[in-house]
Amino acid sequence: MRVEIWSDIACPWCYVGKARFEKALAGFPHREQVEVVHRSFELDPGRAKDDVQPVLGMLAKKYGMSEAQAQGAEDNVGAQAAAEGLAYRTRGRDTGGTFDMHRLLHHAKEQGRQAELLQALYQANFAEERSVFGDDERLVEIAVAVGLDADGVRGVLADPGAYADDVRADEREAAQLGATGVPFFVLGRTYGVSGAQPAEVFGQALAQAWGERSPLTLIDQGDADACGPDGCAVPQRG
Amino acid sequence: MRVEIWSDIACPWCYVGKARFEKALAGFPHREQVEVVHRSFELDPGRAKDDVQPVLGMLAKKYGMSEAQAQGAEDNVGAQAAAEGLAYRTRGRDTGGTFDMHRLLHHAKEQGRQAELLQALYQANFAEERSVFGDDERLVEIAVAVGLDADGVRGVLADPGAYADDVRADEREAAQLGATGVPFFVLGRTYGVSGAQPAEVFGQALAQAWGERSPLTLIDQGDADACGPDGCAVPQRG
Repeated sequence: MRVEIWSDIACPWCYVGKARFEKALAGFPHREQVEVVHRSFELDPGRAKDDVQPVLGMLAKKYGMSEAQAQGAEDNVGAQAAAEGLAYRTRGRDTGGTFDMHRLLHHAKEQGRQAELLQALYQANFAEERSVFGDDERLVEIAVAVGLDADGVRGVLADPGAYADDVRADEREAAQLGATGVPFFVLGRTYGVSGAQPAEVFGQALAQAWGERSPLTLIDQGDADACGPDGCAVPQRG
Repeated sequence: MRVEIWSDIACPWCYVGKARFEKALAGFPHREQVEVVHRSFELDPGRAKDDVQPVLGMLAKKYGMSEAQAQGAEDNVGAQAAAEGLAYRTRGRDTGGTFDMHRLLHHAKEQGRQAELLQALYQANFAEERSVFGDDERLVEIAVAVGLDADGVRGVLADPGAYADDVRADEREAAQLGATGVPFFVLGRTYGVSGAQPAEVFGQALAQAWGERSPLTLIDQGDADACGPDGCAVPQRG
């Protein structure tokens, strides 16, 4: 069974929700038969690469909060992250556009390093001091640390069209599936779970989706040229 | 939508069926949103690596045919391959165990080269003179030609446990889905198509599976900590 997770690097609930989902998956009896795939979702799609701003100021402005209230909101997220064993810097983080990171995640997928890069980007954004925004060499450093080739990564960053269609296709698919925010989990293309739900909810969703995997409808079984343990059909047609 | 194709390198109908499916896919309006994945299926699972024999002798023995009848059967497959534009050597091919090739295909998947390696293995087995069976260096040559690292490939071949679980998991899943032979096509985990059906059948199956993609059932939508275009939920719990 496949689980697809739409998320954004700039989304704290995606970072927390991923950990909760992974806790549920670790306790799921059929976990060896579950494949997890990252899908791209930008919270702020058109955002310019160099439009970087402090998180606290952004929160205060967006919600009409005082700086102290914004700090309280971040402390709350930080407490929930800590409850999942995640490091979270509640002061001094930046936010910005994530298009290039999503393009890199698709590049990493081709190299079998997507899960590693995603975790490293979350870790860098939420737990480390140096910003991941507006700094290509920071992204190169993170990508190289998970085993990607530096020149390959620089090539992707230098070409804004590289993997751009893959990012857009993921986003179109999210819209088609009815996702308006992230994290958004799709289990076996049957069940959707929206938000950083408790691990118990993910555990129930995994069990439910697994239990209801529907049998296939076979199309045109007759007269198929096929090979099986007893050999291949040897047709005498025409 | 994802299409999974269970197949074996030693299976001529898999080679022919793949071409027919690809013809249908090329004419499918939503082809950009279709992802094709290879799944492992060994026709002769326990077969020893060095148990290599000529195809014509194997056919004659298995079906109690004369050598001339076996040649006729191969000519028939060759004619159907030719009709799909595929080269097919009807004389002088070998057959043998394919476990190592499936392990390599899983290795190639991690490197983003699975589709390329699968096509190269089919091409080598069915259209080229040098056998792909019982000769590790032949497999290294084929894998390197599609961009894999020679040392990495030799490492996989030298370690019989490498990717063995992935091959077995694919085979268990085939059994669970009801596949008893290959090629076996699974479209969107909804429809199954068995055998090298005509391209028209694949085209209809693609249209049917696409048209019936079911909407997701959302689990526990309430009170989710999530981020959307308008910002992130700022919970004040506990």
